[in-house]
Amino acid sequence: MPQNKQIHLDNRPVGQAVVSNFKLVISDTPALQDAQVLVRHHFLSLDPYMRGRMNDAKSYAVPQALGQTMGGGTVGEVVGSKNTKFAVGDKVVGMGGWQQYSVVDGDQPGALRKLDTSHIPLSAYLGAVGMPGVTAWYGLVKIIEPKVGETMVVSAATGAVGSAFAALSKARGCRTVGIAGGPAKCKYALEELGFDACIDYKLHPDAPSLSKALKDACPTGIDGYFENVGGMVLDAVLSRMNAFGRIAVCGMIAGYDGAPLPLAYPALILMSRLKLQGFIVSEHMEIWPEALKELGSLVATAKLRARESIAQGIEAAPEAFLGLLKGKNFGKQLVKLF
Amino acid sequence: MPQNKQIHLDNRPVGQAVVSNFKLVISDTPALQDAQVLVRHHFLSLDPYMRGRMNDAKSYAVPQALGQTMGGGTVGEVVGSKNTKFAVGDKVVGMGGWQQYSVVDGDQPGALRKLDTSHIPLSAYLGAVGMPGVTAWYGLVKIIEPKVGETMVVSAATGAVGSAFAALSKARGCRTVGIAGGPAKCKYALEELGFDACIDYKLHPDAPSLSKALKDACPTGIDGYFENVGGMVLDAVLSRMNAFGRIAVCGMIAGYDGAPLPLAYPALILMSRLKLQGFIVSEHMEIWPEALKELGSLVATAKLRARESIAQGIEAAPEAFLGLLKGKNFGKQLVKLF
Repeated sequence: MPQNKQIHLDNRPVGQAVVSNFKLVISDTPALQDAQVLVRHHFLSLDPYMRGRMNDAKSYAVPQALGQTMGGGTVGEVVGSKNTKFAVGDKVVGMGGWQQYSVVDGDQPGALRKLDTSHIPLSAYLGAVGMPGVTAWYGLVKIIEPKVGETMVVSAATGAVGSAFAALSKARGCRTVGIAGGPAKCKYALEELGFDACIDYKLHPDAPSLSKALKDACPTGIDGYFENVGGMVLDAVLSRMNAFGRIAVCGMIAGYDGAPLPLAYPALILMSRLKLQGFIVSEHMEIWPEALKELGSLVATAKLRARESIAQGIEAAPEAFLGLLKGKNFGKQLVKLF
Repeated sequence: MPQNKQIHLDNRPVGQAVVSNFKLVISDTPALQDAQVLVRHHFLSLDPYMRGRMNDAKSYAVPQALGQTMGGGTVGEVVGSKNTKFAVGDKVVGMGGWQQYSVVDGDQPGALRKLDTSHIPLSAYLGAVGMPGVTAWYGLVKIIEPKVGETMVVSAATGAVGSAFAALSKARGCRTVGIAGGPAKCKYALEELGFDACIDYKLHPDAPSLSKALKDACPTGIDGYFENVGGMVLDAVLSRMNAFGRIAVCGMIAGYDGAPLPLAYPALILMSRLKLQGFIVSEHMEIWPEALKELGSLVATAKLRARESIAQGIEAAPEAFLGLLKGKNFGKQLVKLF
């Protein structure tokens, strides 16, 4: 059996997460038992939710256990199988974690899903046609419920979720405005992702300044907002929401490190009769087939062309993950394992 | 035509509202034109939303105009009519304002509604069987959507909205917990309004302390919350909400005077997958008949026996209103005009 490099959570962050929270461990992959499948991972997905799991706090996810391989989504190839449902050479997506190989019970429902890579590249199943894409779909379709001609805004606009959100929102006839960090990301949002406008939040030191920029970019106000970041961006967007606006709360990355960020003016929820709703896409598996069908079609027809940031080798995962938390990535952050 | 005492908004509050914001004005009621009705008000309703209208700020309601009679709900009796739909002696509810008499166009849809006082006292149409009752109904039935066995919490529990909320929540088989100010209100909530528990927020200096009391009163957590106050009460309740909890945001009275109150930990919306939704009951007139039917039945069968605080005479309205904002009233705050 091949040697397997893994990244464990060695200790929990105090404030900001740092590289020394992680530890590289090398082990042998165990021999396969009946029904088990050995998967060689081509790509590991890095996602903001992982930061929340590093804390030992009450959260929606069970905390990541210390001394264990970090959890995470992976796509790869079956290289050994004692399960008749999976053959060597099959391409699969699963939760293989921060490691080169995983051994999976192929009979466990949902543990491994076979992929068709004839029109969709393997890595897209961790992004646009995977959990981030379905996340955008759920927030837009099930919580925001957009109407033709409305204005939609998304933060972290050039990330995996934001990219998919833009394509889905444009397909529904909505003005679609992004918020991203830096001129290169904003240019990319406009030229490649189909956004109608993109605001560089780094040009705005506070919520009133960002609110003014939102007024210019959203002349008829904001009807739907997909929240990935929290903090002053949420304060600014709230000030521009139209009556009966809907906000899908997917991430609060701004508050993952250190002190929780308050919401400055919650009375706006009442004054503008807003709906805010938090969600976790893994709790809504019933919508995945419908969402994946639309997302796959958008990717296969090049209406959704999401960029990827690819770190090389499992050893690079911690640094790439910390960069993701600071917005250093550009598009979907992946780690290529071989 | 009779002389009419009115309370005008003379100037806008700077920070806290004060008695000198108001001015007593005496005028003659004008002669009736065709289709008009002269109503002698028996009771004026005082409600927290009026404080918001005193500001000249962006809000859902048009600001109260300076130099004009304060707006407000009234019940009374027709004492003059040039409209065939209304006869002298008819009991009616309308938006007569802070004055003894009003002249109303009886043909304007919704301006005046005739009342049946055979089983329901006239004043109840300003409380349990009026706007406050329907407010409780909408928040509970349409936003919170309670299930049998769930736990519901309401702040300002012994007010007109809270009283109705308790009866409606108990009728749906929910554990119903109130938050109110002082031992007398809590005793009343338990003994007369049917609450299963009531927490005196005045015993709790901060959100963590109130949160602990909520844990005791809601051993299985909170599934639905009806928000009337905002501030630290909302922070405390948020910390005890169960996954997929629903919060109907009806009032933020704590922030009406002076500086807006932040929400300390908005990330809980995501972590607990909560829905928060603001609403104004006057925008949902389609549900009033259904709501009033249930509320009228609860009052007629004495399942809802809401207390009233009654100030005497229009001159007493400003002081009574300021007391309401500070929670000095006990139950529905009314002004008896004659």
